[in-house]
Amino acid sequence: MTEMTVNPYDVKGEVDYDRLIKNFGIKKIDEKLLKRIEKIAGEVHPYLRRKIFFAHRDLEKLLDAYEKGEKFFLYTGCGPSGPIHIGHYSIWSFAKWLQDKFNVELWFQFTDDEKFLYKDMTYEEIQNWTKENMLDVIAMGFDPKKTHFLVDTKHAGIMYPEAIKVAKKITFSTIKASFGFTDSNNIGSIFYTAMQTVPTFLPNVLNNKNEYCLIPLGVDQDPHFRISRDVVEKLGHKKPAIIHAKFMSPLTGVTGKSSSTNNDKVILMTDDPKTVKKKINKYAFSGGKETVEEHRKKGGNVLVDVACQWLKYFEDSDDKLKKIYDKYSKGELLSGEVKAILIEELNKVLKEHQKRRATAEKQIDKFIF
Amino acid sequence: MTEMTVNPYDVKGEVDYDRLIKNFGIKKIDEKLLKRIEKIAGEVHPYLRRKIFFAHRDLEKLLDAYEKGEKFFLYTGCGPSGPIHIGHYSIWSFAKWLQDKFNVELWFQFTDDEKFLYKDMTYEEIQNWTKENMLDVIAMGFDPKKTHFLVDTKHAGIMYPEAIKVAKKITFSTIKASFGFTDSNNIGSIFYTAMQTVPTFLPNVLNNKNEYCLIPLGVDQDPHFRISRDVVEKLGHKKPAIIHAKFMSPLTGVTGKSSSTNNDKVILMTDDPKTVKKKINKYAFSGGKETVEEHRKKGGNVLVDVACQWLKYFEDSDDKLKKIYDKYSKGELLSGEVKAILIEELNKVLKEHQKRRATAEKQIDKFIF
Repeated sequence: MTEMTVNPYDVKGEVDYDRLIKNFGIKKIDEKLLKRIEKIAGEVHPYLRRKIFFAHRDLEKLLDAYEKGEKFFLYTGCGPSGPIHIGHYSIWSFAKWLQDKFNVELWFQFTDDEKFLYKDMTYEEIQNWTKENMLDVIAMGFDPKKTHFLVDTKHAGIMYPEAIKVAKKITFSTIKASFGFTDSNNIGSIFYTAMQTVPTFLPNVLNNKNEYCLIPLGVDQDPHFRISRDVVEKLGHKKPAIIHAKFMSPLTGVTGKSSSTNNDKVILMTDDPKTVKKKINKYAFSGGKETVEEHRKKGGNVLVDVACQWLKYFEDSDDKLKKIYDKYSKGELLSGEVKAILIEELNKVLKEHQKRRATAEKQIDKFIF
Repeated sequence: MTEMTVNPYDVKGEVDYDRLIKNFGIKKIDEKLLKRIEKIAGEVHPYLRRKIFFAHRDLEKLLDAYEKGEKFFLYTGCGPSGPIHIGHYSIWSFAKWLQDKFNVELWFQFTDDEKFLYKDMTYEEIQNWTKENMLDVIAMGFDPKKTHFLVDTKHAGIMYPEAIKVAKKITFSTIKASFGFTDSNNIGSIFYTAMQTVPTFLPNVLNNKNEYCLIPLGVDQDPHFRISRDVVEKLGHKKPAIIHAKFMSPLTGVTGKSSSTNNDKVILMTDDPKTVKKKINKYAFSGGKETVEEHRKKGGNVLVDVACQWLKYFEDSDDKLKKIYDKYSKGELLSGEVKAILIEELNKVLKEHQKRRATAEKQIDKFIF
């Protein structure tokens, strides 16, 4: 068995989320908290009900403040080194739900410095991806009046002076332990976590406020903030609250996380319907049995079937999802049939996204802070 | 004997400059090079004749280009964490000579990020020193039309994007070896050398040129550029040329380097004539004998007498200096008498400086890039 590794620069092995909760020192989102969110927001997002967003830091404190009438702001982001895929989409659509339901500002960071420092790519390639990725973020439908893009290299003038305040309080020992770095890491990559910390308090610095920050993120990003939450507090800011998502599994199986390193095995936001169909049918790991006869008799395994698992992200109705799972487990639905349902749902999402993306470019200036 | 240590963050022991030349891989400024400078500049600065500026990197190449009609630019700077002292003055007055004689631009960096990251001082304290230090730099009489202040935190918008290109090519191993760092160093201090490298090519990036850069500096700053010269070349820029100064000795003796860590034992640019007199008389290490009688008989030791050594910086006439040294060696001049000469020269310099400093504030905007 591969030892589980989860940090921003490495996700390996089968992820045990209960162990992660313990290791990271984060809190499970329990029924009580879900009810509380429902009371405030008027509904609970399917990703919360389905434990896709499964854990948090200080979300209760943030809600306490919110219920007393205090505002908070959202912070999420994207490392621009390749095309946006459906895994990004899922985190951001949840962020959009938060923006809409809580009526809050969203600060969206493009970590172009990070990707340049970690990837074997040129500065120009990263800048191209930054622009491409912006189109996808805009296509998510965020409110341009309440959404502000921060691009690390473009906004270094306001970010670097704050980043050094963070950096002064973090030693290389800490970075080594948190990210698995060695002396062979480049000095930009070592510094970088300070830049990722800045948006947790920058809006407060710019507006002379002290609001909570809420960060919806993939749980692999937590180590950045595990380090910096204490630092941020020492600098006189509120510790950011975090809400953690599980990894959307790769098409090829339910371990690791979806990533753009192999575009064939991930669904890109720019994929056309035929490509989606081909990829799902070819690569989506099946929980079905070897023959149709056996499947009909013994049923499929919902837990390892990627199409079943991905439907959690795209089938909003709990009833419908339950029916699909039941039928699949009993063998009434074949793997190919579940895949067909997924393909249809995905293509609906992508069609809408691509329509909005086509007109996104002229909105870029409205979004850049 | 204390082992010799010379790097930007530590100068210890008696500095053996011949060994430094070998260890650092820099070149001695020889008579041939001095003659060449004299031919171009019309004169040789006393600091060159007196081997205060004693070594270089690629100065010959830079002069080759200059003689072919190519321009170069100067880059020097200051770490703003305390008052400016006569040691800074000496480097900058040589920089001013270079600017005047070669008619070139000077880029002057205030490394406020560095000082914040390395010193136990607040961000606000460093910002105050930055402003104070600017007044002294302006008082040096640099040409405002050809002198551009870069303040790392103020100009991070243009500097950080270039700094990450440098940082990507430097590992922590290299930093450890060059600066004596450990895993306990903060991650900002580890990144910092990349920021110090940027002005060696930033003017070329901004103006779409590829001119040589010449850096007059105290030899302790060389490790920054020893690391980054190769990196800069890999990024498509010319390796910066460097001209290295020996350390102006502390008042208390001819080992180590002058620094502001003890303002009593250093001459500040803001000291009044009485303070100068008091400090020199009280602290300047004497090369004289124990009694006047013995001194008259055996003579003093010019090499360890701080007043004699400092006069190299402030007595332009070689003849006069030689006479003072001869008389002191023979016992014709007492330590107190040499001190009196030094005090007079210093106070002349400081009077002029302070006059210009008093009206410097209204010029700041002209100098900031």
